[in-house]
Amino acid sequence: MNAVGLAAFAFVGATKAIRERFDLFGVAVVGLVTAFAGGTTRDLLVNRVPLALSSPVEIAVGTFGVVAAVGVGAVVESANDHPVTVSADAVGLASFATAGAIVATNAEIGGFGVVALAVVNAVGGGAFADVLLDRSPFVLLDDFYASCAFLGGLAYWLAVQLGASGELSAFLCVSVTFGTRVLAVRYGWEVPTAQTLRTAD
Amino acid sequence: MNAVGLAAFAFVGATKAIRERFDLFGVAVVGLVTAFAGGTTRDLLVNRVPLALSSPVEIAVGTFGVVAAVGVGAVVESANDHPVTVSADAVGLASFATAGAIVATNAEIGGFGVVALAVVNAVGGGAFADVLLDRSPFVLLDDFYASCAFLGGLAYWLAVQLGASGELSAFLCVSVTFGTRVLAVRYGWEVPTAQTLRTAD
Amino acid sequence: MNAVGLAAFAFVGATKAIRERFDLFGVAVVGLVTAFAGGTTRDLLVNRVPLALSSPVEIAVGTFGVVAAVGVGAVVESANDHPVTVSADAVGLASFATAGAIVATNAEIGGFGVVALAVVNAVGGGAFADVLLDRSPFVLLDDFYASCAFLGGLAYWLAVQLGASGELSAFLCVSVTFGTRVLAVRYGWEVPTAQTLRTAD
Repeated sequence: MNAVGLAAFAFVGATKAIRERFDLFGVAVVGLVTAFAGGTTRDLLVNRVPLALSSPVEIAVGTFGVVAAVGVGAVVESANDHPVTVSADAVGLASFATAGAIVATNAEIGGFGVVALAVVNAVGGGAFADVLLDRSPFVLLDDFYASCAFLGGLAYWLAVQLGASGELSAFLCVSVTFGTRVLAVRYGWEVPTAQTLRTAD
Repeated sequence: MNAVGLAAFAFVGATKAIRERFDLFGVAVVGLVTAFAGGTTRDLLVNRVPLALSSPVEIAVGTFGVVAAVGVGAVVESANDHPVTVSADAVGLASFATAGAIVATNAEIGGFGVVALAVVNAVGGGAFADVLLDRSPFVLLDDFYASCAFLGGLAYWLAVQLGASGELSAFLCVSVTFGTRVLAVRYGWEVPTAQTLRTAD
Repeated sequence: MNAVGLAAFAFVGATKAIRERFDLFGVAVVGLVTAFAGGTTRDLLVNRVPLALSSPVEIAVGTFGVVAAVGVGAVVESANDHPVTVSADAVGLASFATAGAIVATNAEIGGFGVVALAVVNAVGGGAFADVLLDRSPFVLLDDFYASCAFLGGLAYWLAVQLGASGELSAFLCVSVTFGTRVLAVRYGWEVPTAQTLRTAD
């Protein structure tokens, strides 16, 4: 699952960079940043050497995502919206949120830390990539995306508090994140803005 | 004082995100980043696990600032320029600069490090938030804002060099940062640009 | 060599900030970020306290670069493209890439880590500065710049794998990075984009 996520995130990031006409070096950097920057930030925050730098397998999987994006980008126009891409991306979101929640729990940094690292791990890479592409991170603007990782991290933390095993908690986190994301795409969920709240009054 | 600063920074950051029509998740993230990213960067630079992640009280105070911004944003248009906001923000600037100077001194990283961490702690969160809002950090452009933290950090370091106690040095840092900021707002101080220097010749 | 690089990077970064009409505080920050953020990120990634914060000599050299940029900026319009600047910048690129490769090798983080830290150390500061200037890092867009550090880091890693001494490997890294950069400027090399690949089919 983690591998699916790495490849999907690298693919999505590289595709965005191709669309912005970055050169191939830039495409590779943005793709790898999308795949690895979330986990790297997570590792920095709990003070350990980022794993990604020393894992040849993970690097290879991420690079595969970049190469696929360049290959597919030569054929398809908007590979980003293809159901396969969207599904793989949701798998990545769920897998990364769970990894973040687990690392935070092991580092014993409390409930907010668990939820925060689930979100950072899941969407930090994409947000960093958006900054490199000179735009606001899309997760902050609309769409129901980071919120899925938030809910997944919350489910993980609650499960651990209620005495669930690590396996069960991880399963819950994956299910909640993936499930809410699929529903969000299917039904076009959006997080309201302060403006829509005001209008709703 | 630290609590006033956290709430004020979260409020200011969240208000900026509301104005840019970020969704409520984005508003919360930008608000919390404004409040916590400076201290988190400081902690990363001296190699310790960021405190904010494991302090429920601080998180609650920051969240209060975000909620206040959403509530007030529904009523007032430019809450950012309100005297109460500006004063609370100056308190935060002084409190955060002092915290940065103290952490740097304890980590024994020299005079530049003390001043640099005072500035990073005080304005790093706001600068990070501006990047998320897809603009250049306002502290780099004009206004006399980061310079107050710079002068405060310098005062702290000089006081320590001259044998002052930690308490006195901290008091000096708070006073200089807060005092110069209040004067800067009152009299519209600005840091010159290289262009104005050239014209002045 | 490291000093030449620090001064050149600070000069180039400060010149960019002057052109964007940042105030002098912002000019100093962007200059120092260009000089030090690459090495700082490298140190964070291998979990050590960034050296730059506690080295008065390095800070002084970086500050010299900033002051020079402000002084020269008052006289010359585009000091950035001057052959002296371009050469000093290439020296910095080579020196920083080598420092990154050495630190990564000492931290034992594998081949990808060696190449990645060579690139991060060499171009991370400039990329960070570009984000502060609210643009995409130029190294991702075109030009043959980060690729030189990539090739240098690769040469270093290969040399170490083949049993070369640390000195020889470092010499190779410097030569490859500097050499390819000089050739790239001389002959206008560019990394292709996915679009040019498609057209070439």
